[in-house]
Amino acid sequence: MQAQLIALDWGTTSLRAYKLAAGGVVLEQRALASGIMQLPATSRVINGRECTDGFELAFDDACGDWLDAQPDLPVIACGMVGSAQGWREAAYCETPANVAHLGNSLQTLVSLRGTRVHIVPGVIQRSHLPNVMRGEETQVLGVLQNLPAEASGNLLIGLPGSHSKWVEVVEGCITHFDTFMTGEVFAVLSEHSILGRTQQHGAAFDGPAFDRGVQVALSADGELGVLSTLFSARTLGLTGELGASAQPDYLSGLLIGHELAALATVQRRRRNSAQLPSIILIGNAQLCARYSRALDACGFAAVTLAEQATERGLWQLALAAGLLDSSSR
Amino acid sequence: MQAQLIALDWGTTSLRAYKLAAGGVVLEQRALASGIMQLPATSRVINGRECTDGFELAFDDACGDWLDAQPDLPVIACGMVGSAQGWREAAYCETPANVAHLGNSLQTLVSLRGTRVHIVPGVIQRSHLPNVMRGEETQVLGVLQNLPAEASGNLLIGLPGSHSKWVEVVEGCITHFDTFMTGEVFAVLSEHSILGRTQQHGAAFDGPAFDRGVQVALSADGELGVLSTLFSARTLGLTGELGASAQPDYLSGLLIGHELAALATVQRRRRNSAQLPSIILIGNAQLCARYSRALDACGFAAVTLAEQATERGLWQLALAAGLLDSSSR
Repeated sequence: MQAQLIALDWGTTSLRAYKLAAGGVVLEQRALASGIMQLPATSRVINGRECTDGFELAFDDACGDWLDAQPDLPVIACGMVGSAQGWREAAYCETPANVAHLGNSLQTLVSLRGTRVHIVPGVIQRSHLPNVMRGEETQVLGVLQNLPAEASGNLLIGLPGSHSKWVEVVEGCITHFDTFMTGEVFAVLSEHSILGRTQQHGAAFDGPAFDRGVQVALSADGELGVLSTLFSARTLGLTGELGASAQPDYLSGLLIGHELAALATVQRRRRNSAQLPSIILIGNAQLCARYSRALDACGFAAVTLAEQATERGLWQLALAAGLLDSSSR
Repeated sequence: MQAQLIALDWGTTSLRAYKLAAGGVVLEQRALASGIMQLPATSRVINGRECTDGFELAFDDACGDWLDAQPDLPVIACGMVGSAQGWREAAYCETPANVAHLGNSLQTLVSLRGTRVHIVPGVIQRSHLPNVMRGEETQVLGVLQNLPAEASGNLLIGLPGSHSKWVEVVEGCITHFDTFMTGEVFAVLSEHSILGRTQQHGAAFDGPAFDRGVQVALSADGELGVLSTLFSARTLGLTGELGASAQPDYLSGLLIGHELAALATVQRRRRNSAQLPSIILIGNAQLCARYSRALDACGFAAVTLAEQATERGLWQLALAAGLLDSSSR
């Protein structure tokens, strides 16, 4: 099959490149470590000119050969590449945002080799406490493409990560979302707080320790909040009730448990219903497995995992932006 | 006045020494940076022997001259000096614990110069999630000494710090306490998370930014929990609603607000009363001022600050342990 689009998922620590054919079929894909915070630093000649720009170098690493073979392929990119620290800032679109709004708001730059690179904006929710996402909006759109419109009312899309996002959608629009810094808090506490001093890392996933952490968050003890229950990761160690190798997964379960317990409370209030929405998870398989386990414990009954969300979303956005022949759909 | 006791408040990062006369009157006091995690490392001769032990060196720095003048002065010490990483481990006493229990459980070592050093044990609460303190028990006892016994039923004693403690007392006994890792979480997020990247430190205390953080924790937005509201310290910066120099105090208010909102909820439940207990705060004056401000916002009406809690507590414990002449009271 002939390639129709190069799609880039370009985040803080990684760059994934997809060569897509008609219908969004993935012909080839690559993963590089060239996220926007760790770009290549060794200059070389690109298109006849000595180049020191990390974005140009990474872009050429990711898909230079694909463009050599098909110089007219359109290129679309989402993620932190469009942030103020990225290759070119693409201003946030406001909620409610759908594929048409975002597809009509791409920011375009011309690379050193003359290729037009179209950057997807993030989404901002100007609520009392503002919320932003960059990259996740594309994944959500990729999932929505495959859903019947009527499914979305009782649906919540979760994107676990350093900053996990929980996205509400109505008729193909991103209408509301919440962010939890759970992943980053886990990382900084494990690396830099007193809790990390007694943690032993590297063991296989300890399901019972993880589940115990989740249950503490859901218990009456959890009412004191995570700033308090955190300390149990230390004291259960002091009293010999939690081994060093169990402590990381206990802490992980505790934090994710607090996230999901609060999410369930707020979802019930917003929907004015005891019934919790169905969940679709997008993201790293191991992390999604942790969230699935904890969602189940928190009473979220129906959890499914989405695949290929990013490349599907980028394909839909390229279509909406008119970057593809109409025959490509 | 003649000295009767040397009292040491020996924590992780500091060592305070008090020379006390009859009635616990402070004759002289000193503060050294020789906490148990930053002990002196330069060897010297003590009592005729070359000494490399950091505890001995710090002890000699703190009160060697006082002991030269009065070699028979009893010495008592509280804090992390009695932890497993301290000079000599003093096993935790269980709750309920009062001045008699703790005074009868001192751990004694003999220093290089032949002085008996009596170390106060910490307190452990063997609840479902265990809790521990070391040093704070002495401060609480120092405060209780000056209170009529009947005052304690409607009282909560707060000790803000890296790990803040909230202590319930009944008739001179420490009966229950909770720990919040608020101070340490603030430090690691400011130093190591994405929130720190846009913070500008060094400005004077920004009261309105602090109060705003407290109010967010108390608002409907706070229901999502601190793992979620944390992200507003970033997004309010992105939208220009919170300047870089206001971000540290906003984050401080947010975290303290979540701590105190949860504390108020749990206190009302435990006491089965809408009325919140009176508060006595012990600790660093600037940090206590922040907590006073936030306690007021959370509906805790009566807040007072305790002074000289540590030295008073150490005096009471020395009395209970029989280290002092009965005429010294």
